Amino acid sequence: MTVTLTDIQQAAGRIQPYAHRTPVFTNESLNKKVGAQVFLKCENLQKVGAFKFRGATNAVFSLTEEEAACGVCTHSSGNHAAALALAARNRGIPAYIVMPSNAPQVKKDAVAGYGGQITFCEPTLEARENTMDSIRLDTGASVVHPYNDERVIAGQGTAALELLADVPDLDVVITPVGGGGLLSGTSIAAKGIRQNIRVIAGEPEMADDAFRSMQAGAIIPSVNPKTAADGLLTSLGNLTFPIIQKNVEQIVTVSEAGIIASMKFVWERAKLIIEPSSAVAIGVLWENKIDLTSLKIGVIISGGNVDLAKLPWQG
Amino acid sequence: MTVTLTDIQQAAGRIQPYAHRTPVFTNESLNKKVGAQVFLKCENLQKVGAFKFRGATNAVFSLTEEEAACGVCTHSSGNHAAALALAARNRGIPAYIVMPSNAPQVKKDAVAGYGGQITFCEPTLEARENTMDSIRLDTGASVVHPYNDERVIAGQGTAALELLADVPDLDVVITPVGGGGLLSGTSIAAKGIRQNIRVIAGEPEMADDAFRSMQAGAIIPSVNPKTAADGLLTSLGNLTFPIIQKNVEQIVTVSEAGIIASMKFVWERAKLIIEPSSAVAIGVLWENKIDLTSLKIGVIISGGNVDLAKLPWQG
Repeated sequence: MTVTLTDIQQAAGRIQPYAHRTPVFTNESLNKKVGAQVFLKCENLQKVGAFKFRGATNAVFSLTEEEAACGVCTHSSGNHAAALALAARNRGIPAYIVMPSNAPQVKKDAVAGYGGQITFCEPTLEARENTMDSIRLDTGASVVHPYNDERVIAGQGTAALELLADVPDLDVVITPVGGGGLLSGTSIAAKGIRQNIRVIAGEPEMADDAFRSMQAGAIIPSVNPKTAADGLLTSLGNLTFPIIQKNVEQIVTVSEAGIIASMKFVWERAKLIIEPSSAVAIGVLWENKIDLTSLKIGVIISGGNVDLAKLPWQG
Repeated sequence: MTVTLTDIQQAAGRIQPYAHRTPVFTNESLNKKVGAQVFLKCENLQKVGAFKFRGATNAVFSLTEEEAACGVCTHSSGNHAAALALAARNRGIPAYIVMPSNAPQVKKDAVAGYGGQITFCEPTLEARENTMDSIRLDTGASVVHPYNDERVIAGQGTAALELLADVPDLDVVITPVGGGGLLSGTSIAAKGIRQNIRVIAGEPEMADDAFRSMQAGAIIPSVNPKTAADGLLTSLGNLTFPIIQKNVEQIVTVSEAGIIASMKFVWERAKLIIEPSSAVAIGVLWENKIDLTSLKIGVIISGGNVDLAKLPWQG
C-alpha cells in the first residue's frame, strides 16, 4: 500500500472543516534576492502554527468510531504533538502524548493547552517507545506516527494541492525535509497534478540524512544532529524514503548561516514569522547551489513556532 | 479645506497601481484573549512595511507634472521617509530626505535603497527644518509632511476603505495615534461609509499628547516622550487635531507593558511581525480599559518595521 493523489484529495475533504486554507504570499524583495518568482504557502498560519495539523487531522478523522473511542497516542516533543492534541480534541477523543521530561516548557504548555494528556519519560528513544507501548496497551489508543504513516503523509500533501490550485503553473516546489512526511506527501500531490513539476527538498547540512540516504540508495539515519532547524532532526522512515526516491529530483543541503540568513530575511521583508525549519526551504534558493533562475517556485513554509526569547541570530 | 470621503475614494484610485491591497486576518487565540471578534488590516504587509506608503503615494501622484518635475522633500527618520522615497521613484522624480545624523543605519539604508537622496543634519527640529527649507529653495521640491497634509491624510484613509469593503459590519475601528494622519484619515473613511461606527485610538501612556489634547480641547505637544512605540513620538498637527476631535470617540492610553505583551502575543499566535506602534492598537483591547466585549472590531496594523536585533521583550 502506498499513498495516491486520490488519498490526498480525500484527506483534503476530511480536514476541510478543521484546517485553515492558508494564504499564498509573494514578496518582491525575496524574488529580487533569489532571482525567481517565489510563492510562499504559509503553513505558519495553519492551526497550531504548522503543516503538522493537516496530517494529524487526517489521521484522527480516518479512524472508525470504535477505534476513535480509545483515543490516539504519539511520542513527540514538537509540532506533531500539539497538532495531534488539537485534532483529537476536535473529534472529542483523548490524545496521549509521550514527551521527554526535558522538553521545553513552551512545548509542554502548547500540548496541554490543546487538551493533550502528557506522560513524561526519560529523554531516550527507548524510554519514549516503551512508555508509549504501555499507554497503547492500557488504553487501546491508535498510534499516530509523526511522519511514517500513510494517513499523515496524505494529510501533509493537502498543502501542495491548495498551492497548485492557487498557482497552477509552478515549475518547482520546494519543502524542507526531516522525517519526510511533508516532502513525500507534497511530491505525490504535485506530481499527481502536474507531472513535470520538479520537486526539490532543502535539508540542513548538519542533519543531512536524506541527502546521504538518496546518494546511498538506503536509509542512513542522522546521529545526534545539531541544527537551528529543530524540526528537521528526525531521519527518513521506511514509508517516506521510497516515495522520495521516486519523486524527488534532489535534496539540497543548506548551511546554518544560510538557514539563519533566510529566516531573518523573511522576517524583515515579508513580515512573517517562520521557524528555522521553514527557512531551510528558502535557503535552497538563497544559497543558489542549483540554478532555478526565473522559474515559478512554490515553497511550503512549514511552520512558525519559534521561541521569541532565543532567536538564532542573537548568538 | 478639509478631507472628505470623496478625497479618500479618489486617493484609492490614485494609489491602486502602486500599493498592495493588504489582507485582513483573524486569529482565534486573539479573539479569545480579548473577548471580541478582531479583524487585523495588515499594513505591515504594505510596501515599505507600513501604511505610510499610502499617504506618500497619494501626495506624490497628486502633484501636477510641473510640480512633480522638481521632486518632493521631507524630514523624517522613519517609515514616511522610506515611503516617500519609493513613491517618488515610482513617479520617476527625486525625493530629498533630511535625516538626523544619528538616525539608525537600518533606516538610512532603507531610504537609500528606495533611491531617496539623503541630506544629514544635526538631530534637532530646527536643524531639520532649516536644512529642508534650503533644499526646497534650491530645488523647488514640494514638501510632503508625514501627517499634517490633506493628501497624506486622504491616502492613509484608504486602508479603512478596504477594511470596510472586506468587513462591512464592523462596530468599531481602532488605530494607533502619533501625529494623527492614520487616525484622522481612518475616521473620515469609516464614518463616511458607516455613520455609527465607533472610532477609537490607542496611544502610549508615555507619549499621551493626543489623550491630553482631547481633554484640554487644544493641542498639547509631547515633550521628549520615551516609548517602545517609536512611530508614535510625534504630536498631533493643526490639520489632524480638529478631524480627530470631531470623529474620534476616545483616545485610550496603553502602558509599555501592555504594548510589549500585545506585540509578543501577535508574533507568537498570529505569526505576524508587527511593530510596537501597531501593538498599541491591540493594547486597547488587551488592557480592557473600555468594554468592547463581543463587538466586531477592525484594527489597523500600522506597520512591521522592527530592529530584529533589539526586541522590546529582551530588556
